[in-house]
Amino acid sequence: MEGKYEGDIGHDDHHNPCVEIAMEIHKVETPPKRSSLQKLKNRLKETFFPDDPLRQFKGQSTKQKWLLGFQYIFPILQWGPNYNLNLLKSDVVSGLTIASLAIPQGISYAKLANLPPIVGLYSSFVPPLVYAVLGSSKDLAVGPVSIASLLMGSMLRQEVSPTQDPLLFLQLAFTSTFFAGLFQASLGFLRLGFIIDFLSKATLIGFMAGAAIIVSLQQLKALLGITHFTKEMGLVPVMSSVFHHTKEWSWQTILMGFCFLVFLLVTRHISIKKPKLFWVSAGAPLLSVVVSTLFVFVFKAQHHGISVIGKLEEGLNPPSWNMLHFHGHHIGLVIKTGLITGIISLTEGIAVGRTFAALKNYQVDGNKEMIAIGVMNVVGSTTSCYITTGAFSRSAVNHNAGAKTAVSNIIMAVTVMVTLLFLMPLFQYTPNLVLGAIIVTAVVGLIDIPAAYQIWKVDKFDFVVMLCAFFGVIFISVQEGLALAVGISIFKMVLQMTRPKTVVLGNIPGTDIFRNKHQYQDAVSVPGFLILSIQAPISFANSNYLNERILRWMQDYQEEEETKNHSDLRFVILDLAAVSAIDANGVMFFQELRRVLEKKGVELVLVNPVGEVMEKLQKADGTHDLLQPTNLYLTVGEAVSSRFSSMKVGSC
Amino acid sequence: MEGKYEGDIGHDDHHNPCVEIAMEIHKVETPPKRSSLQKLKNRLKETFFPDDPLRQFKGQSTKQKWLLGFQYIFPILQWGPNYNLNLLKSDVVSGLTIASLAIPQGISYAKLANLPPIVGLYSSFVPPLVYAVLGSSKDLAVGPVSIASLLMGSMLRQEVSPTQDPLLFLQLAFTSTFFAGLFQASLGFLRLGFIIDFLSKATLIGFMAGAAIIVSLQQLKALLGITHFTKEMGLVPVMSSVFHHTKEWSWQTILMGFCFLVFLLVTRHISIKKPKLFWVSAGAPLLSVVVSTLFVFVFKAQHHGISVIGKLEEGLNPPSWNMLHFHGHHIGLVIKTGLITGIISLTEGIAVGRTFAALKNYQVDGNKEMIAIGVMNVVGSTTSCYITTGAFSRSAVNHNAGAKTAVSNIIMAVTVMVTLLFLMPLFQYTPNLVLGAIIVTAVVGLIDIPAAYQIWKVDKFDFVVMLCAFFGVIFISVQEGLALAVGISIFKMVLQMTRPKTVVLGNIPGTDIFRNKHQYQDAVSVPGFLILSIQAPISFANSNYLNERILRWMQDYQEEEETKNHSDLRFVILDLAAVSAIDANGVMFFQELRRVLEKKGVELVLVNPVGEVMEKLQKADGTHDLLQPTNLYLTVGEAVSSRFSSMKVGSC
Repeated sequence: MEGKYEGDIGHDDHHNPCVEIAMEIHKVETPPKRSSLQKLKNRLKETFFPDDPLRQFKGQSTKQKWLLGFQYIFPILQWGPNYNLNLLKSDVVSGLTIASLAIPQGISYAKLANLPPIVGLYSSFVPPLVYAVLGSSKDLAVGPVSIASLLMGSMLRQEVSPTQDPLLFLQLAFTSTFFAGLFQASLGFLRLGFIIDFLSKATLIGFMAGAAIIVSLQQLKALLGITHFTKEMGLVPVMSSVFHHTKEWSWQTILMGFCFLVFLLVTRHISIKKPKLFWVSAGAPLLSVVVSTLFVFVFKAQHHGISVIGKLEEGLNPPSWNMLHFHGHHIGLVIKTGLITGIISLTEGIAVGRTFAALKNYQVDGNKEMIAIGVMNVVGSTTSCYITTGAFSRSAVNHNAGAKTAVSNIIMAVTVMVTLLFLMPLFQYTPNLVLGAIIVTAVVGLIDIPAAYQIWKVDKFDFVVMLCAFFGVIFISVQEGLALAVGISIFKMVLQMTRPKTVVLGNIPGTDIFRNKHQYQDAVSVPGFLILSIQAPISFANSNYLNERILRWMQDYQEEEETKNHSDLRFVILDLAAVSAIDANGVMFFQELRRVLEKKGVELVLVNPVGEVMEKLQKADGTHDLLQPTNLYLTVGEAVSSRFSSMKVGSC
Repeated sequence: MEGKYEGDIGHDDHHNPCVEIAMEIHKVETPPKRSSLQKLKNRLKETFFPDDPLRQFKGQSTKQKWLLGFQYIFPILQWGPNYNLNLLKSDVVSGLTIASLAIPQGISYAKLANLPPIVGLYSSFVPPLVYAVLGSSKDLAVGPVSIASLLMGSMLRQEVSPTQDPLLFLQLAFTSTFFAGLFQASLGFLRLGFIIDFLSKATLIGFMAGAAIIVSLQQLKALLGITHFTKEMGLVPVMSSVFHHTKEWSWQTILMGFCFLVFLLVTRHISIKKPKLFWVSAGAPLLSVVVSTLFVFVFKAQHHGISVIGKLEEGLNPPSWNMLHFHGHHIGLVIKTGLITGIISLTEGIAVGRTFAALKNYQVDGNKEMIAIGVMNVVGSTTSCYITTGAFSRSAVNHNAGAKTAVSNIIMAVTVMVTLLFLMPLFQYTPNLVLGAIIVTAVVGLIDIPAAYQIWKVDKFDFVVMLCAFFGVIFISVQEGLALAVGISIFKMVLQMTRPKTVVLGNIPGTDIFRNKHQYQDAVSVPGFLILSIQAPISFANSNYLNERILRWMQDYQEEEETKNHSDLRFVILDLAAVSAIDANGVMFFQELRRVLEKKGVELVLVNPVGEVMEKLQKADGTHDLLQPTNLYLTVGEAVSSRFSSMKVGSC
């Protein structure tokens, strides 16, 4: 069978081509009729309910449905009744571990957001409790996170100074948190969770690395002891500010900061190498805080150039609903900040939840998680908390420490509560440099060079997107860098639609299989046939291009084949298997192409249109010119062998 | 062979399944290696030079290359040398015919743009000459057109009143025309012509119909004789203005306008029914102008409530480069107007050129046409012309009148020149109502109800886009209606990428062919196998969705098949023929899916990845776990029969 369709024209015939009347021919079918309304319903379902969340309710009794409904809204009702002492033991260990991390990080991140340190602790108390009731992840450790803190701080600082007008700044932060939560919950409720998918892996890696550098640079203030630090975030202003204030550098601060930074980085390194020693890096921040505070207290270092946090109030979260402002001329900024911090913290929370769910083989429902995180932030904004989500580093520690359920969040919250009630005076002498070192150590982990290298290997364009995000964040601004990367990603997607691939297929010798001639170098073309596969939906955005491109393929054929094999082009076969949809322009494309080819004496043959394409062609093509049985086949093989034999009939 | 893969499990075995060791297995190949640079070059070529304009230069001598180059830039050098008397005869007839249409339309459209009527004639003189040298269409009749005139007039009127400050308005119009031309030429030069493809057929039909109604409504001023007419464009303000000024209605104007309108519409109807009588509708406007002018002159009707054009200057286009303003506080509006009118007039010009080129079976190079139209407008803006392009109605008349080359444009320009030099005083008594009637007759043809019905039949979503454009133009504004429709079209495209189709394939009995089970109702599934086809590039925008969707298909399988046939799911086969590309997220999707399936004891088998997908999977997958020979097949048939027999080996 070698060279099934080859050799009959242009070579010596060693067998009669007329005998080779081919295989069985199969009909292309149209899917069963559905009304437009049914189609719309189906389309909406696929768009908004791809995970079919109501599946479990099918065929249940009414009482059962109510129970399932409550369990759906409050996952705690699902696992709560089976909770036992063994689980509690694990959760207490992991809860205490993440609390020891959450307290210093909470204070640090609040400073990153230009908020009073205590707000960071408030935010580690209420939101974890809310999440424990509503959330479906077993590993997520909830609290303030570095990037969202940075974003909120830098965006709000555009209009209000946190040092000159701290109360207004705080009010705007709570209001932004409220809007972020509202937005997050709405996304989940309206099943629009796919919006966070537009932050591709490449975008996120570039963005996180850029943000990590920006955050680290901000810590130079604390680590060098500079008092007159720039208020801008970019690489250039920060570096120039650092080197214009060399006189303010304090060697005591630098020495002490350097020691703690090295200590924290070493413990981090140990825990990465040996995940079982997770408690080394988990306990290190608290230990650093205790040691440095004692050091300052004993040596009265605050009088020797080392700046300290200062007095903190005792007591639990005061209510803050009276601090939410829904009018005034900062409302635009507040909503924008809410949107951006909301979407970024959502992305982190969902990604972390999914990662650990995949490790333990359970499912996290994205839309439901969004509602949980959103409600948590709305509640938080009324109880003096700023934006929170599932933190990557703390969740990893939580997971490694053996957390079994969301009870570990409750344990953490209780520990933070005890701290708030009784231990606040102890932080009075905590030096700012240790907070800076804790932040740097935490964000260094966001720079993921192996992942960046992997992206470089796999997809150069994604790498460019990553670089755009990275340099955009460093040199322009955090939010604009992000927008740039998302814009480029979407542009690439649109470009892909505008310039779909068309490939020439050839016959793999000895089979009926037709494949890309470029990929399968031994695939041979059939004389007289140009077989093309179109690999995208045909729509307004590409119908003109496809028309031009197909004519160019025909010119190529004429130049190459006709001089080589003296065979005129007789048939253009379009393999439509990969054309998943067409629109009105797509339909016209076929009609137009057929007309043009007819004028050139070439026949257009369509192969394997999918259901939707078939339906639309039928509807548009009143006379069914395009869809005659001799122009429509189920496989390329059948099309070629049928038309090939018809071509030969004349010469027999 | 009926039920090839069926019947072996769950039914009685009538033959030993172990014997059925299947067909030959073919290897999936990787395309030959190319460097990233080569790939980039290829991608750029496909994006910007899909028509390969340099093809003709290949293998020519240097002298020949220069000649071809000049001919490429000035198509007149190509057809000029072969021009003969016969062609000239045809061109003179068609040239005179379109001139008789262009003169009254030129005057009318200039009024539509709130410009002095004579600018319309200027614009029918210089641009056709420029186009004759640079353009590649043989049928395009160049001059002012209704929609671009309307757009320019209405956009500029937002900031400057044409009655209170006519000179500034004129300057802004010329400057906008300059920017429009610059933009058009740049699009062509940068090979970005595909931008006009984003105006889909549906968008254009809705937009044109809406604009036709807006334009017609504006003519009520002239046709009813109202003097205090609103300056707004929308349906609501115009209608309220019309019925608030019923006292200004002049019965003489209404009567006379009605007569001419009926006359023009009847002649138009005749020419549509019998294309050979094209001269009936082509000559009617000029005849109407002559008759109505004579009527006014003889009966002194201007003193009886009929408004006339008034004195017009004689003489050719004065230079206007000194009227171009590239600064001042209207510059933003001017650039915006240039962009929008530029893109709209480009769309009309290119579409008209392509339509008639297809009828006569010659090719029009979109990017080259853009340069021609752009240069024509830049030159026009320095010679007192406002925006021009290829007009649909006049080009149709030109084509029907037998135009052979762009010389018909030259004949038309000469006729307009004669008019400008000697005949201008004759227009002094032309009544405005006849211009209104001419415009209404011209734009009525833009309302294409059969095309709208066709779109309704073929694609409901496109119909919605059309309605948005239509109602947007009528009720909001011309440019916002357009933007709305384009936005929705692109949103649909993005949504298609976010929610790609996945379909379950089944075996068509008696073959190795696997097709959509929904479309081919007799296709049967193979027990133990879930065969899915993914029909879109896998990227960041859909990898999460696909993951969820595939898990749901598996649940469906488990619910249906396992209860029916008691066959556990063993293999998930993904047919990747239609996955034309993947990015870094796509690669991770496969790795993730494989991990999840492994945990469930299900194997992932990939079928027929295209070259790019194959390459990226290889690069990313260091250990080649995904691409083991037992997990990678060329066709679904081979995959199923190979894994099916391996499944049976255990039971033998």
